[in-house]
Amino acid sequence: MHHPSEKDYIHQLSIDCVILGYQDRQLKVLVPKLDFRGDFWALPSGFILQEESIDEAARRILEERTGIRDIYLDQFRAFGPTDRTNRAFLERMMRLNEEKFGEELFNRKEFDWITRRFISIGYYALVDMNKVVPRKNDIDESIAWYNIRNLPPMIMDHNEIVGKALETLRLNLDEKLIGFNLLPETFTMREVQELYEAIFDKPFARNNFQKKILDLNVLERLEKKFTGAANKAPYLYRLAR
Amino acid sequence: MHHPSEKDYIHQLSIDCVILGYQDRQLKVLVPKLDFRGDFWALPSGFILQEESIDEAARRILEERTGIRDIYLDQFRAFGPTDRTNRAFLERMMRLNEEKFGEELFNRKEFDWITRRFISIGYYALVDMNKVVPRKNDIDESIAWYNIRNLPPMIMDHNEIVGKALETLRLNLDEKLIGFNLLPETFTMREVQELYEAIFDKPFARNNFQKKILDLNVLERLEKKFTGAANKAPYLYRLAR
Repeated sequence: MHHPSEKDYIHQLSIDCVILGYQDRQLKVLVPKLDFRGDFWALPSGFILQEESIDEAARRILEERTGIRDIYLDQFRAFGPTDRTNRAFLERMMRLNEEKFGEELFNRKEFDWITRRFISIGYYALVDMNKVVPRKNDIDESIAWYNIRNLPPMIMDHNEIVGKALETLRLNLDEKLIGFNLLPETFTMREVQELYEAIFDKPFARNNFQKKILDLNVLERLEKKFTGAANKAPYLYRLAR
Repeated sequence: MHHPSEKDYIHQLSIDCVILGYQDRQLKVLVPKLDFRGDFWALPSGFILQEESIDEAARRILEERTGIRDIYLDQFRAFGPTDRTNRAFLERMMRLNEEKFGEELFNRKEFDWITRRFISIGYYALVDMNKVVPRKNDIDESIAWYNIRNLPPMIMDHNEIVGKALETLRLNLDEKLIGFNLLPETFTMREVQELYEAIFDKPFARNNFQKKILDLNVLERLEKKFTGAANKAPYLYRLAR
């Protein structure tokens, strides 16, 4: 495989991916931990090749860093303060892992372009955690799902990037119906409510909530869920095609 | 003034501004027309200086290209296909305006970096057309408000960028209450409905619409509007602080 070099990339522009899942009534974020001393967690990230669109770059980076492919990724925001650089993080990582880097990397030309100020475009996706199997990259010690309210401290502004992804999710939940990507194919109204409560981090009143969701006019009611107690069994729903 | 040169800018990344206004029940877009033969309309656009954040760049570019300042600009999307370049537009403009450019510009080093593929971050703002006075730049023949449904053909993907801004506006209208930026300080419910109808390009049923807006719980009802016919006069509203 051709290994891309400095001139193959667009400089000063990167992509960060926020992959959201849902389990045990908790919203989760997929975060790799780098295989270096110093506890470095970082969102799946990378630079954009000259020969690929930004959407193609997001999909390639996500697959390289997590093994996940064929999911719908959407942009949510670009992050661009003047002091946005990974120089501090990379220097600390190299200092703590000298046996892997040696002195020479500090002087390599490659180090220059990747440590300049860069703007990052955030992409996010919502996935059914039962359907994707994250696979760690060679540069990672581990890859795992973390509760969004208890994330490890990530490099640079990556924790803030997750916060903005969550804001976008809340804003677009009803309009774009993306929340249902986090649920299995059929679900009860109570499961929808629990999902919304996890996303908004607050309780909703049951009757109002149910009315609001049904008023979206996007759910198809199926048979009752089998629970043994017929008259109290809740209905199952699914997203109408 | 120091004139910025190639190395002062982030390469392959630009900003485009979509400035929306509202008048005569029509949604409008502010578009400068370049002062060159060939009818070139282009959104207010520019590159980002190394020393400014992307938000600062958006405000500077907007002011330089339109004279408008102190308005709230928000990002909505980055545009990044691989073939996104202004080479075709610039070559055509130079061919049609040889007396201004001469042969030499085609060979200037400056021409190289500005004609490479570049990604653009779209910013948009909603302004009260009674409060802003656009001022054309020296490079423009004119600057004017165009009905969003009857825009001139702009360079590159600028018409598509306006389309995405409109999508974002529709998506965020209720949540972010940004639509009220387009209305005067006090307004009738009918005026709100006309604004929504202009934005969504479709009629709304009066009673449902009124209920939906009042349910947002953000309007303060004031005295009735003076029309001469007291009992039919509509109430005035304003956005609650």
